[in-house]
Amino acid sequence: MKRREFLKVTALGTAAAALASPVQACPGELRGTGDLAIIIERASGSVVIVDTTAHEILHRVEGLGDLSHASAVYSRDERYAFIFGRDGGLTKLDLLEGVIAKRILQAGNAIGGAISDDGKLVAVSNYKPGGVRVFDTATLEPVADIPALYDKDKRSKTVGLVDAPGQHFIFTLYDAGEIWIADFSSGSDPKITRHKGIGDLPYDALITGDGRHYIAGLFGEDGMTHIDLWADAPAPRRILSGYGRGEKKLPVYKMPHLEGWAQAGGHFLLPAVGRHELLVMDAGTFKEAGRIPVHGQPIFAVARPDGRQAWVNFAHPLNDTIQIVDVPSLKIIHEFKPGPAALHMEFSPRGHEVWLSVRDSNQVHVYDTSTFKKLAVLPAQSPSGIFMTARAHRIGL
Amino acid sequence: MKRREFLKVTALGTAAAALASPVQACPGELRGTGDLAIIIERASGSVVIVDTTAHEILHRVEGLGDLSHASAVYSRDERYAFIFGRDGGLTKLDLLEGVIAKRILQAGNAIGGAISDDGKLVAVSNYKPGGVRVFDTATLEPVADIPALYDKDKRSKTVGLVDAPGQHFIFTLYDAGEIWIADFSSGSDPKITRHKGIGDLPYDALITGDGRHYIAGLFGEDGMTHIDLWADAPAPRRILSGYGRGEKKLPVYKMPHLEGWAQAGGHFLLPAVGRHELLVMDAGTFKEAGRIPVHGQPIFAVARPDGRQAWVNFAHPLNDTIQIVDVPSLKIIHEFKPGPAALHMEFSPRGHEVWLSVRDSNQVHVYDTSTFKKLAVLPAQSPSGIFMTARAHRIGL
Repeated sequence: MKRREFLKVTALGTAAAALASPVQACPGELRGTGDLAIIIERASGSVVIVDTTAHEILHRVEGLGDLSHASAVYSRDERYAFIFGRDGGLTKLDLLEGVIAKRILQAGNAIGGAISDDGKLVAVSNYKPGGVRVFDTATLEPVADIPALYDKDKRSKTVGLVDAPGQHFIFTLYDAGEIWIADFSSGSDPKITRHKGIGDLPYDALITGDGRHYIAGLFGEDGMTHIDLWADAPAPRRILSGYGRGEKKLPVYKMPHLEGWAQAGGHFLLPAVGRHELLVMDAGTFKEAGRIPVHGQPIFAVARPDGRQAWVNFAHPLNDTIQIVDVPSLKIIHEFKPGPAALHMEFSPRGHEVWLSVRDSNQVHVYDTSTFKKLAVLPAQSPSGIFMTARAHRIGL
Repeated sequence: MKRREFLKVTALGTAAAALASPVQACPGELRGTGDLAIIIERASGSVVIVDTTAHEILHRVEGLGDLSHASAVYSRDERYAFIFGRDGGLTKLDLLEGVIAKRILQAGNAIGGAISDDGKLVAVSNYKPGGVRVFDTATLEPVADIPALYDKDKRSKTVGLVDAPGQHFIFTLYDAGEIWIADFSSGSDPKITRHKGIGDLPYDALITGDGRHYIAGLFGEDGMTHIDLWADAPAPRRILSGYGRGEKKLPVYKMPHLEGWAQAGGHFLLPAVGRHELLVMDAGTFKEAGRIPVHGQPIFAVARPDGRQAWVNFAHPLNDTIQIVDVPSLKIIHEFKPGPAALHMEFSPRGHEVWLSVRDSNQVHVYDTSTFKKLAVLPAQSPSGIFMTARAHRIGL
């Protein structure tokens, strides 16, 4: 049996059988990279590389350190993933060879990263030491260090790091309540623009798919902060007062992820903090335009790439369920229970399929988004984030 | 000198020198495919395969037949291009090996094509015999033949063929004035929905990037036809009366390409037929919201992927000039003359660069879209369309 066939059989077999059969890396095969993806195996510090067309596991790669809350971005040729670990590890993974091309420990504690629009710089958001470090994507050699200094010599944790057009990185200082824009268009010594007083304890942020709007969530007060980056003089302003956990002290099991906002049909759909609701926000005015009752406290509300559906998952103890919102009517059109801890979703680039991590079943499911039929089940060890290479071509991902 | 270095030197040398040195295909190299592109050499029936990161020519491939008005789509792994020739040729090109993987003559006269969202079907729009033919992307074996029959036994030319979510293809019957939707979600025998009486002589069409709106231009009367595919019962309706060439018989040197519409900032920018203007259309109401005076009769108005700029080129005899519109202000912020017959533009997926064919200089230029600086010049023989592999991941491209 050829290796590929073996892997296919494994993928269709039970998760337990597959976990007992370690997948070996093999020499690189001449193939396109546009339909590859990685699946983070958070508990074991490993990732699985998959062929999303064949629904096949190609490689399992170990030794990536602490991958709780890990995320990834891609080189513009879609050959390499840059994986950001919680322990400050930055790993460059070769998807074709199925091996680690390079790995560095760039800080003591980190949370996510971004890649510049020209593909030359990879930036990491650090808690310890607080700030952003920037590396050359070819070599992982350091290019710039941006300590998040405030109040003379304090250093803030940084969150919500994204790329924006023009070799810009944007990030938020959790402790300082600031948003910084770092412009690398003139080289390795960035021009930094600081926006102070943006709100109390900003815990995460997002940028819209057009790179125009940067929005930070606030843990310490109601509302959020918005910057229109296309304005003549971009400046932070408060939006959505009433959003956040400041005023209503509801129990919050898990803060919603802002990168999970769905933008579709002139609206954003976003998880309401601590409530069994999605908020509907007008994408032009940034004002609340309605609410949609849902099954539990929503974590992610992710738009299918065409924006016609949004898929929603939920916090513990209701995290075995997925609901699907029809965006034109804002109604729930489907609900199902894939299994315990269905926590991460990733759509194929044109939206015909969705890949879903069911962590406590040690499975990744693939569904047809038109019929909602389950198309495939792949084994993975405590899978969390799924990242397809098509992200290489998107602003802010 | 290694082959790659030779090609780089060639690319930086004069176009004439390069044309005298035929580029040899070489065995495939292990590499990602996310940053590749093809450039159509219309007069010689050849294409050039380029690395858009290195600004390097990798291969030149000949023998693709009549490539006037040729276009291309990509397999979802971004390894293969499907190139639609004017002579009915359908060529599957292997970008990694730099060779033709398969080529068929599927009709006598054709105009463009599309690939299904799952990557399994490639469809071609034919003038002779009028209709759409659909092939398996793996083998180019025929899957379905859809003759564009009307008035008993007449066959219409078909135009404006696009993909839409759910394994749908949509196309327009030029002679019959109809729009057909072919749904392949149940297999190779498509369910066809016909919309009749959509207007006189529809000559081209587009679908918006979210797959929601299909809009056909009319040559025989003023106005255009729009179908909202998300509606409960999608139906054609007229929009933009006054657009088109019916009422005002202005000299029209070249009909504008509808796939060149820019959608950005809540507006569409579209070339006005026969006038030195762009029309601004409200993207919500589809009503005219203004006009922008420009240098000549616009052919393409293409939005940078973030939507902040639109780049505009012009019909003969003013086709040596490019103008750039700042979308938030709707003002022209830059103008330059790259050379004679600057007819096709393609943005890098996140918009940091634009590639521009200057046909009558036998050159392709690469510009930085922030500074407008020329970054590279590559030689090509009468270059026309430029197609980057990132199109694989976009609806309607």
